[in-house]
Amino acid sequence: MGKTTDNLVALAHQVSSAPEPREMDMLLATGEQVTIALLSMALHGLGLEARSFTGFQAAIRTDRAHTKARITQITAERVRQSLDAGEIAVVAGFQGFSDEDEITTLGRGGSDLTAVALAAALKADVCEIYTDVEGVYTADPAIVPDAKKLARVSYDEMLEMASLGAKVLQSRSVEFAKKYGVTVHVRSTFKPDSGTLVTKEEQDMEEVVVTGVTHDRSQAKISILRVPDRPGIAAKVFGAIATKNIVVDMIVQNISRDGYTDMSFTLPRGDHTRAVAALEEIARSIGAQGVVHDERVAKVSIVGVGMRSHSGVASRMFATLAGEGINIQMISTSEIAISCVIEDKYAELAVRALHDTFEVGKGANR
Amino acid sequence: MGKTTDNLVALAHQVSSAPEPREMDMLLATGEQVTIALLSMALHGLGLEARSFTGFQAAIRTDRAHTKARITQITAERVRQSLDAGEIAVVAGFQGFSDEDEITTLGRGGSDLTAVALAAALKADVCEIYTDVEGVYTADPAIVPDAKKLARVSYDEMLEMASLGAKVLQSRSVEFAKKYGVTVHVRSTFKPDSGTLVTKEEQDMEEVVVTGVTHDRSQAKISILRVPDRPGIAAKVFGAIATKNIVVDMIVQNISRDGYTDMSFTLPRGDHTRAVAALEEIARSIGAQGVVHDERVAKVSIVGVGMRSHSGVASRMFATLAGEGINIQMISTSEIAISCVIEDKYAELAVRALHDTFEVGKGANR
Repeated sequence: MGKTTDNLVALAHQVSSAPEPREMDMLLATGEQVTIALLSMALHGLGLEARSFTGFQAAIRTDRAHTKARITQITAERVRQSLDAGEIAVVAGFQGFSDEDEITTLGRGGSDLTAVALAAALKADVCEIYTDVEGVYTADPAIVPDAKKLARVSYDEMLEMASLGAKVLQSRSVEFAKKYGVTVHVRSTFKPDSGTLVTKEEQDMEEVVVTGVTHDRSQAKISILRVPDRPGIAAKVFGAIATKNIVVDMIVQNISRDGYTDMSFTLPRGDHTRAVAALEEIARSIGAQGVVHDERVAKVSIVGVGMRSHSGVASRMFATLAGEGINIQMISTSEIAISCVIEDKYAELAVRALHDTFEVGKGANR
Repeated sequence: MGKTTDNLVALAHQVSSAPEPREMDMLLATGEQVTIALLSMALHGLGLEARSFTGFQAAIRTDRAHTKARITQITAERVRQSLDAGEIAVVAGFQGFSDEDEITTLGRGGSDLTAVALAAALKADVCEIYTDVEGVYTADPAIVPDAKKLARVSYDEMLEMASLGAKVLQSRSVEFAKKYGVTVHVRSTFKPDSGTLVTKEEQDMEEVVVTGVTHDRSQAKISILRVPDRPGIAAKVFGAIATKNIVVDMIVQNISRDGYTDMSFTLPRGDHTRAVAALEEIARSIGAQGVVHDERVAKVSIVGVGMRSHSGVASRMFATLAGEGINIQMISTSEIAISCVIEDKYAELAVRALHDTFEVGKGANR
């Protein structure tokens, strides 16, 4: 049933160039409703008791932000009764209802989010998420042959990894899991093996410096050259981008020289043409020298809660890349992650080298 | 979107040989939900204000008989508000919800029924039903070239015509319209012309003897021969059929001779094999001579409220059929209809002859 949502969206665009968000939700909510009904029937067919619930029936209340609603409350009373009666409760993901009894959908990652939120509401021991991979890996196994499946990963690490290119779980559901302390077990739909527990941070996790190496090849880099370095300039530049609904990722501003500075940032590759057009206008109006852009970039990152208590991690990362002859174009850091933007063609090489240097996944499954 | 329900039913049977009715309703309700969302989007696209409502949102309350629920109450508060605000309210047909907040569907003819019930709840002047024909005809125009579209037809006539083979409106919605006095306007989706008003009976309607000639070629005839004529036998025979969930249409029992009688009835052709098997057993147990059946039968009927005040209608019908050399196998009558079962191959001939004899549709559009 994977293509259902895409098909519904295509139908909507056949009848309207800009479908109303409320009607879009009315439409999209049917996809999961079909799925839960069929799954319940299939379970009955196996001789099991099962019962499906729409977002409304499961009492998944949201705000009224159609197509990207936020869950505000879950009572899940009927789901609880169903479980108490020994039934398998099959709940529609991705959907809820507002105070006005409107059908809403939760947007990207909404199905996982429903699962985590329900687990929180029901105070479940664990929320198992079945997916097409076997768990969270120390790096993409397609690039790093000796990448290891992680037995455990902390919420913060998972959040960094999700935002830095790992595609297993969406940030929203990890944030929710962290907030409500829900242990999430990411595991394979196709294999019975246990996968990766996404869970609260424990003492021993800090013993490992780097938990994972991620990469993201979906970005582009834009720089504005010789920007007059005065207060309010950054606000002007990024305000112009924000009005175009473009989400910027990394931002780097070099130190000022002679009253001028360079500003660089990364953004989703698909948005870069629109962003460049907007910025060229801005560059003129603020007296900058010009705008340059590069789509052949990749971001490689190392992530690990151990970075908090280990020093010299950044310099080891830079040395590793230098040792491979890779030039670092941009750097950004957080408490538990370091990211470097490099030329795209070096992405795989960089990931393998970093995985090797930090002995990621070596010794113990954490 | 016409095939949606069929596709959903096919999906259900792929996962379960006997899908639970509750889950079937969960599944089938999505079909109209998709349609109302898309229709509202299309209306927006034309610059009109529109808003879709599920059965729940329109407050169409039903009993809990899944897949064939009956409407128990419609408050339609939100629909009324939407109309008051000048919007086009687009309501999902065929669906409602039970006191337990379960999604229900209304079964065959459920979409028309929703329309009529909503019109009643909203005290609408008229309920317009757009269909693929231009209205109700005096006979099937494919058989009778000079069949006329009726400008008006009474509820009772429409009910008889619906149950006697006319496929324009389903009996359930006509019954509902009659009960609540809703005027239904059956008209074409493709032409702007006015169609047929289904309305309460008016004095002048009786001036016309026969309003329509209908035929039904979807039935079979079964006879049980030489049934001992004692009390309780009919109950035994039709009890056996009812337990097989077979709905019998016409029933004729001849007068008794020497303590024996013959019983004949018609039923949907698809059910006749099952019915014959059940009846052969019954025939043995009650000492009847045997069971004969015939699938090559047709039922032709004349319908009209004028029959109440005109005499000799039946004999004119029989004479007309005799004049064409058509043998009458079974006869049944109601207050405003007479039906004859004849050999199937004479069906068209009979309809044309009756239409001619009674000058149906001649003079005035009623």
